[in-house]
Amino acid sequence: MSTSSIPTKPVKAFGAQAADALLDQLNINRRAPQPHDVEIEILYCGVCHSDLHTARNEWHGTVYPCVPGHEIVGRVVSVGAHVKNFKVGDHAAVGCLVDSCRECDYCKEDLEQYCSTGHTQTYNSPDKHLGTATYGGYSESIVVDEAFVLRVPENLDLAATAPLLCAGITTYSPLKHWKVGPGKKVGIVGLGGLGHMGVKIAKAMGAEVIVFTTSPSKVADAKRLGADDVVLSKDEAQMQRYAGKLHFILDAVSAQHDINSYLSQLRVDGALVLVGAPENPLPVAPFSLIPMRKTFAGSMIGGIAQTQEMLDFCGEHNIVSDIEMIRMQDINEAYERLLKGDVKYRFVIDMASLKQ
Amino acid sequence: MSTSSIPTKPVKAFGAQAADALLDQLNINRRAPQPHDVEIEILYCGVCHSDLHTARNEWHGTVYPCVPGHEIVGRVVSVGAHVKNFKVGDHAAVGCLVDSCRECDYCKEDLEQYCSTGHTQTYNSPDKHLGTATYGGYSESIVVDEAFVLRVPENLDLAATAPLLCAGITTYSPLKHWKVGPGKKVGIVGLGGLGHMGVKIAKAMGAEVIVFTTSPSKVADAKRLGADDVVLSKDEAQMQRYAGKLHFILDAVSAQHDINSYLSQLRVDGALVLVGAPENPLPVAPFSLIPMRKTFAGSMIGGIAQTQEMLDFCGEHNIVSDIEMIRMQDINEAYERLLKGDVKYRFVIDMASLKQ
Repeated sequence: MSTSSIPTKPVKAFGAQAADALLDQLNINRRAPQPHDVEIEILYCGVCHSDLHTARNEWHGTVYPCVPGHEIVGRVVSVGAHVKNFKVGDHAAVGCLVDSCRECDYCKEDLEQYCSTGHTQTYNSPDKHLGTATYGGYSESIVVDEAFVLRVPENLDLAATAPLLCAGITTYSPLKHWKVGPGKKVGIVGLGGLGHMGVKIAKAMGAEVIVFTTSPSKVADAKRLGADDVVLSKDEAQMQRYAGKLHFILDAVSAQHDINSYLSQLRVDGALVLVGAPENPLPVAPFSLIPMRKTFAGSMIGGIAQTQEMLDFCGEHNIVSDIEMIRMQDINEAYERLLKGDVKYRFVIDMASLKQ
Repeated sequence: MSTSSIPTKPVKAFGAQAADALLDQLNINRRAPQPHDVEIEILYCGVCHSDLHTARNEWHGTVYPCVPGHEIVGRVVSVGAHVKNFKVGDHAAVGCLVDSCRECDYCKEDLEQYCSTGHTQTYNSPDKHLGTATYGGYSESIVVDEAFVLRVPENLDLAATAPLLCAGITTYSPLKHWKVGPGKKVGIVGLGGLGHMGVKIAKAMGAEVIVFTTSPSKVADAKRLGADDVVLSKDEAQMQRYAGKLHFILDAVSAQHDINSYLSQLRVDGALVLVGAPENPLPVAPFSLIPMRKTFAGSMIGGIAQTQEMLDFCGEHNIVSDIEMIRMQDINEAYERLLKGDVKYRFVIDMASLKQ
């Protein structure tokens, strides 16, 4: 499907030329919109931990130059002849995926994130049209097939909506899949970009929400975000409070941590679902699972239909991310702060800064 | 509930007086049947790995003397005044549980195995009536509340039915809970007492069954038992055959093993369920779970209603365990062979030998 004859136009972007290089301005090419494509002027782009991992080749396989960014919100500036659902001037959003095979069992079940032949990620995937790598949202504009473009609820703040495209769907999808709702006690482990979205969404779904954190400094903020209770996970006595009582735990911690102590919080048939991704294997004791038929699972973003459902849900419940706005030129400093957990709770780049 | 004034009668049994002692003959007391009790003359008792672990105090907490045995089949010899479902002469069976609180949420949901105040296990639990430990099926007779006594399908061989009471329900319960049936590809890891029951039951449920084993010598037997295919798990090329394709895996291995290599066999939303219990924690890589929303879970025996359902299912499908009959006096040698995996696939004690 590589069609090198496709016309392109150069746009300004910010990216890394090597694993050990700072991100800096560069030019990339975007294809001219094809019949099903939507061209989007990017207004805001969230900063996800994956951006940093990929820019620095920490997950290996990064193709340079690397232009990260998969929490994209913008305005439609042109549409292909066959585009049905978007018109020039609409707000639109793009998340972690820009294409998939659309033919496998998983794609047909709206699970494009698990496409069996491999989806096309918004950055650092082979670009089916141009033969280069795909380039993400740290750029002036992006061209995406409308099947992978989302609509943004009108009532939400645009900048604070950007993180919903990854942090929002990554937490919404497992909460929905494991049927969180009224009458359910839900633990959220780790109060960062993902965790703070988990609190807001689980609470809006009607669950009783308990935040587990190692930081006494986060207790007040967890309650402000909607938590019914906060447990300091290093305090054994506090950990007894919900032992055997939780229906579901969303684990958004990406550092190594003791999974067994959180599994002990689950009731019979409870599930702990990892959305953070610690680098090394986590030791799981068989007796953490067997005596109460507990589940330890993982979940990755969400499909396109569910991402739209999540955006509509957030619109209905007035949910956005807590953000700190930065300029594109501040991205390297933002990465350093991200590594220290020094952000409440998501950096969002004001892409107007790239035009200056 | 301890009523030390309850009349008892001494019966012959076989048990351990200490962790490092061989099992030998001893006398224990059985209570006189109370109004809801069924007194069962034990005809056959299966030998479970748990018997050995408990007799040798390998799981700690063993109270001596310890009389193991929780795969019990026998004949009703007397019933209490209020017993409704059994009469003298009936065949009857007892599994791993002889009581539970009957009041907690789990008991009310027929999940007595997960009773929140603690069920009474057939051996080595506090006996509510006599104040001693409970004593299991390595004995002439047992007295059990009829709520925990099972009916045995008439068409099944009595001796070969005994292992259904633990090995049968331990495999049936998760296969049923995770909805194994026609159209599902099911892996069974480890072909021992549990695994061979898993193969028979999953096959009878209509699934396509793939056995994973480290032993080339077990391939033919796996097929005889009903497996559609057998994968030698040490052979990387064979492991590729079902990579990403299985809906469910029943893991019946109690030795340490690499869970990640089996998780790789699962398709999206697939579940690997532990019923064997390795002693040490199993390292689980986050990326074994996250990219395809996989589940790693555990399951323990089954509730009483489900145990009856399993027995009825086995009756309908003519399923029993493959057994090797032994005399009670051979139990210590049988334990040594069990440790070497030298049994196809379950020892069953002919309890008539205890009368000699």
